[in-house]
Amino acid sequence: MNLPDCYKEVRKLTEQICAPLHTEDYVVQPVADVSPPKWHLGHTSWFFETFILKPYFMGYQEFDPQYNFVFNSYYETVGTRVIRTDRGNLSRPTVADIYKYREYVDEAMDKFLSSEPAADIKELLILGLNHEQQHQELLYTDIKFILGHNPLFPTYSEDYRPPENEKNTGSPFVKMNEGVYEIGFSGEGFCFDNELGRHKVYLQNYEISPLLVTNGEYLEFINAGGYQDFRHWHAEGWDWVNKNNVIAPLYWHNINDTWYNYTYTGLELIDWDDTLCHVSYFEASAYAAWKGMRLPTEFEWEAAAGQFNWGTRWEWTESAYLPYPGFVKASGAIGEYNGKFMVNQQVLRGASEVTSPGHSRVTYRNFFQTYLQWQFTGIRLAK
Amino acid sequence: MNLPDCYKEVRKLTEQICAPLHTEDYVVQPVADVSPPKWHLGHTSWFFETFILKPYFMGYQEFDPQYNFVFNSYYETVGTRVIRTDRGNLSRPTVADIYKYREYVDEAMDKFLSSEPAADIKELLILGLNHEQQHQELLYTDIKFILGHNPLFPTYSEDYRPPENEKNTGSPFVKMNEGVYEIGFSGEGFCFDNELGRHKVYLQNYEISPLLVTNGEYLEFINAGGYQDFRHWHAEGWDWVNKNNVIAPLYWHNINDTWYNYTYTGLELIDWDDTLCHVSYFEASAYAAWKGMRLPTEFEWEAAAGQFNWGTRWEWTESAYLPYPGFVKASGAIGEYNGKFMVNQQVLRGASEVTSPGHSRVTYRNFFQTYLQWQFTGIRLAK
Amino acid sequence: MNLPDCYKEVRKLTEQICAPLHTEDYVVQPVADVSPPKWHLGHTSWFFETFILKPYFMGYQEFDPQYNFVFNSYYETVGTRVIRTDRGNLSRPTVADIYKYREYVDEAMDKFLSSEPAADIKELLILGLNHEQQHQELLYTDIKFILGHNPLFPTYSEDYRPPENEKNTGSPFVKMNEGVYEIGFSGEGFCFDNELGRHKVYLQNYEISPLLVTNGEYLEFINAGGYQDFRHWHAEGWDWVNKNNVIAPLYWHNINDTWYNYTYTGLELIDWDDTLCHVSYFEASAYAAWKGMRLPTEFEWEAAAGQFNWGTRWEWTESAYLPYPGFVKASGAIGEYNGKFMVNQQVLRGASEVTSPGHSRVTYRNFFQTYLQWQFTGIRLAK
Amino acid sequence: MNLPDCYKEVRKLTEQICAPLHTEDYVVQPVADVSPPKWHLGHTSWFFETFILKPYFMGYQEFDPQYNFVFNSYYETVGTRVIRTDRGNLSRPTVADIYKYREYVDEAMDKFLSSEPAADIKELLILGLNHEQQHQELLYTDIKFILGHNPLFPTYSEDYRPPENEKNTGSPFVKMNEGVYEIGFSGEGFCFDNELGRHKVYLQNYEISPLLVTNGEYLEFINAGGYQDFRHWHAEGWDWVNKNNVIAPLYWHNINDTWYNYTYTGLELIDWDDTLCHVSYFEASAYAAWKGMRLPTEFEWEAAAGQFNWGTRWEWTESAYLPYPGFVKASGAIGEYNGKFMVNQQVLRGASEVTSPGHSRVTYRNFFQTYLQWQFTGIRLAK
Repeated sequence: MNLPDCYKEVRKLTEQICAPLHTEDYVVQPVADVSPPKWHLGHTSWFFETFILKPYFMGYQEFDPQYNFVFNSYYETVGTRVIRTDRGNLSRPTVADIYKYREYVDEAMDKFLSSEPAADIKELLILGLNHEQQHQELLYTDIKFILGHNPLFPTYSEDYRPPENEKNTGSPFVKMNEGVYEIGFSGEGFCFDNELGRHKVYLQNYEISPLLVTNGEYLEFINAGGYQDFRHWHAEGWDWVNKNNVIAPLYWHNINDTWYNYTYTGLELIDWDDTLCHVSYFEASAYAAWKGMRLPTEFEWEAAAGQFNWGTRWEWTESAYLPYPGFVKASGAIGEYNGKFMVNQQVLRGASEVTSPGHSRVTYRNFFQTYLQWQFTGIRLAK
Repeated sequence: MNLPDCYKEVRKLTEQICAPLHTEDYVVQPVADVSPPKWHLGHTSWFFETFILKPYFMGYQEFDPQYNFVFNSYYETVGTRVIRTDRGNLSRPTVADIYKYREYVDEAMDKFLSSEPAADIKELLILGLNHEQQHQELLYTDIKFILGHNPLFPTYSEDYRPPENEKNTGSPFVKMNEGVYEIGFSGEGFCFDNELGRHKVYLQNYEISPLLVTNGEYLEFINAGGYQDFRHWHAEGWDWVNKNNVIAPLYWHNINDTWYNYTYTGLELIDWDDTLCHVSYFEASAYAAWKGMRLPTEFEWEAAAGQFNWGTRWEWTESAYLPYPGFVKASGAIGEYNGKFMVNQQVLRGASEVTSPGHSRVTYRNFFQTYLQWQFTGIRLAK
Repeated sequence: MNLPDCYKEVRKLTEQICAPLHTEDYVVQPVADVSPPKWHLGHTSWFFETFILKPYFMGYQEFDPQYNFVFNSYYETVGTRVIRTDRGNLSRPTVADIYKYREYVDEAMDKFLSSEPAADIKELLILGLNHEQQHQELLYTDIKFILGHNPLFPTYSEDYRPPENEKNTGSPFVKMNEGVYEIGFSGEGFCFDNELGRHKVYLQNYEISPLLVTNGEYLEFINAGGYQDFRHWHAEGWDWVNKNNVIAPLYWHNINDTWYNYTYTGLELIDWDDTLCHVSYFEASAYAAWKGMRLPTEFEWEAAAGQFNWGTRWEWTESAYLPYPGFVKASGAIGEYNGKFMVNQQVLRGASEVTSPGHSRVTYRNFFQTYLQWQFTGIRLAK
Repeated sequence: MNLPDCYKEVRKLTEQICAPLHTEDYVVQPVADVSPPKWHLGHTSWFFETFILKPYFMGYQEFDPQYNFVFNSYYETVGTRVIRTDRGNLSRPTVADIYKYREYVDEAMDKFLSSEPAADIKELLILGLNHEQQHQELLYTDIKFILGHNPLFPTYSEDYRPPENEKNTGSPFVKMNEGVYEIGFSGEGFCFDNELGRHKVYLQNYEISPLLVTNGEYLEFINAGGYQDFRHWHAEGWDWVNKNNVIAPLYWHNINDTWYNYTYTGLELIDWDDTLCHVSYFEASAYAAWKGMRLPTEFEWEAAAGQFNWGTRWEWTESAYLPYPGFVKASGAIGEYNGKFMVNQQVLRGASEVTSPGHSRVTYRNFFQTYLQWQFTGIRLAK
């Protein structure tokens, strides 16, 4: 697909994700990690306006200079930002105004893309599209959080279809041999800066499961008192469990001794054959310890990824999010994209059922804090 | 006016106050003390449904049993409540649904009121209307907070007209003589339980200002370093100033050495002749100390109220909010109305420019925590 | 007694209270409201050094200029202070050094008092002695908190003798007639500024109990589910109960279904005939509400005090701590003594078993925040 | 040295470290990470009593069953523990009692060790001695924190001699070649479980400094505005700087434009040739970024450690604290030693001037949270 069409398709998908929402759903921010959908809509447009239209499109008129103040995220180099926890306090700009803003930016981009941009601008554009795809996934997860924490448990869309479950073919763990492996992105096409620097790592013998953990398997951990036994947990995880009274994955509700979970189609009986979802790293790690196994490192995952299916859950790994050898931050605001988060977070590999099509790849490095459950996160065991 | 018309008029005013809002403005809750406008709309309807229609209107069908969970406020006797700070996280019910709920309740009330209700139900109804008027004022103050804390400083309504300023006629303080005065409500008509128990108090000689403090007078306090000198402040007030870096009344902004304040028509240059507004009790008390005076007690205020104009600002008094002699809580949920707040709050007397017409009276006892600024609060000096 | 002897006697008593302590007991500060005993010892000496010796004793050499920084309390006018919650972090000056400091100050005071001081200095001296007596009581209550929160429940002193219980003579409530009463200090002798301004108040008919509530009577409230029923509590009190999981007065422990309380002689079975102690205002008020009665106001208490025994418990009143008519703060640091606390606190009247001999009187106004339990506080009912 | 002598020597050193303290210094806990010295003294004795004497020494009488409650640290398997932040609230047991406890345990250990213990008990004993050495270092760092945060800046001991500074011989960075290296402990002697599992890693070409960063070099970073420029910092580090107003390493004080630091001999002018100390990981990483370099990984450090001097500072590495391949937690309480901390901490390599003699080694893995400054931490650059 050519770049202008690509641009249109990505931008359209963002709006399709929001189509089932009521105006009110666009506004709220129940916790700091969840952003209001209208903020995602504005922020992704702001990205193209700020990094492409304003510097490179001669004669472009900014839609509204105040929007920089409202839709900037963590880009410290681009003016004063709205403190992140305040996003949910802002009723203005309205949703209608933000859609106007998107339209305005899209029209300008359309004109701008009518002539072939220079290579470095193209790169920025592709980064912007990948950035928007990341926010598409966040829209899905944030919408689920907003509706799933409403006492009325409203349906997002009756049309939402989760992926088919993997067949449990009884396959044994995949055995991998000790030796030197190459890790990191190579070849053509887009990747983030944190995947670059393809390099050798030495792995020991290991085995990795071809299947993800199911709800039913995880229920055994719950029923065995897993949340009450500190021995399975990191000290910090154990504190998290107790301070927050965690007793199950996010969206699970035990009502009169029956387990339900909240889904995009409302509150439903849990399907025990479904792939487990919405667990924190602490839970993933405790479950693995209880099974007498462990999580794979991100290198083990990447080396073996050709031998199993992946793509329905972001898979927690045993690897902390750290720079690859030779990693260098880009200069300017774009350089704030990844490097500054390389501390106290854990790597997730794969993709999830709400990751945008074509967005992820086998070298993709996702990362989140160890206590977060609101992404579509799952568990693959290793030993 | 007859009761059914009264009901309609009060209910209509609530909706008129909200008319200038966009849907998004109904949803947010920037701080715990401010409720989303849609919550006020739902809660006032819930009051009539819960305390009148459900117990007394035969055959009434509840609009939605879940709404009790969402729109209950602090009434501990009526089921589990939504935790107050969570109101701003709820995108559903939508604004449209809440207006349907109001309409549904209003139609039922209309039928119910077509035959004369019993005296005790009438009393409940009048309480409900006064309750709704209190929420009308909160709508005004909460809307101002929501829009006034948005970086775009949007206008609420170009039609909003603040009251004329009092003429400063240079009148001296009103002198009041020592002696026994009668305090509290007597006579016909509605009053809250906290005004009842008319009783004698003994007052010493005192003087009270016929005028409220102006912005210009308060600016002198600011310019004299009032916010930097602990001697004027209560110890708790001094902590509040320093923890919150308070340097002026709420909505005042010093931009390039010029003072602006946010009003219902947007950010404007401060009019120094305007009556001061949006100060906390801590500020009112510190200003009075700086002037070498004090605030009046609520009894001094009531005894002298016939001799000055009041009604544009709630006036902080030196009196803590405590029960009058013989005060008895009503039984049941209605009994939670006032008595349980009679600790660690300060009494305000009068009314404000956004108090509903006919709502207040000379014996009315309003009360708030000492650090709050978001009501239309002002200062009257005594000595 | 002459002033020099008075001084010696008061100073000696402070040291006698501390005599049973180990060095370690002088150092800790388990919560912000409790100060380390060594701080009390230093602070009371600092008071005489700062307000008498330095300004009035020619040629006096300050013991250590740094001590001002360490032993200043809330006197904002006298240099930078140590933040209150930090007192428990200071291992130096050592206890031995602080005793040396006391001795140094006492010797200087002895010389200073060898010639008759001027009247205004005498006044300051008497204030200093009353100030030290207040810290004597705080030493008692803070020592009890420190030892009573140690898992070893150590004994303070086997010699401690609590007062005899009042005989319950079955006397009925004292009836008091409506009318004008005079309130506040008059006559010769010392009083605090907050007692001054003797003035008339008008009281309605009321009745007041001649006896304080006992442990056994309060147990009935506990057993009747008093801590689980919000109807008896102020809204703020109910929050306090639930956030802190309060189920009984401070120092009560339910061990295997038997109630014990911590006393100066260790953990003991509760004596149900003993006068109740260590309840917050919230508890006092909830108990009274449960009994269908109320607490007396401070004016009711003072007007009736001649008709019952008092002095073993500080008695919570229904009165907020506010200035008497005509109250004026003293200028300078001494002026910070009382006035700045006149908000969001409740008045207690009487005295307690650990109040220093001769310190209190019928017009004395003690005051604390409504959630505090660590003083020797009790309940007298009114109606 | 034989085991009984080893035991005596280690135990004696602990007491020597404490010898300069006053009783009061043993008691306080200014922040949660710092424990009172008396707690270290008790806890290390408790370790031998709990894990050796009680299970293996027939007829041993526990010194005091309550001490388990007081001196247990994070060992969740051994009874209820005192919450960590409460340690500073405990005045009892007294310091004298704790020294009695040590003596009692030492006498029992002396008898117990008079006959050769079984191999597995020997292992426990050696673990206990290494554990005590870790607390010796914590005693040093906690004592420095306690005295260094006292406004009197007391001297710990005039006899304390810091190590000589390394000569800056102008040596270039050590060049290391790409390839497979072996990492982890092998051979005889004691090591912690987290060092085990010697395994191959693949390293790229890198260079590592033979010298640690000095105070003077770090001052350039400060003077260049390093603490004010977010580009050098991790996002989490930048938050830490701003929330805590960090402007320099711990113990640095800028007084009238001159830099001092607190040392064991009091407040002194900073020696710019001294090796930098007391920086957090955030600061170490920001400094390296500002220099256009980075910190070494723990594997790079270990592979190159033979080619430079180390041992005066714990050196922050770019490696998160994670399990080595094949890591298995020991069962029981001993198993809580290391594994449960393997999340959200960073590895430090080397040893410091206050590490006990013989305690560390080239494979030793120390670890702390990224914001902590109170250990003797420094910076070695890599590229």
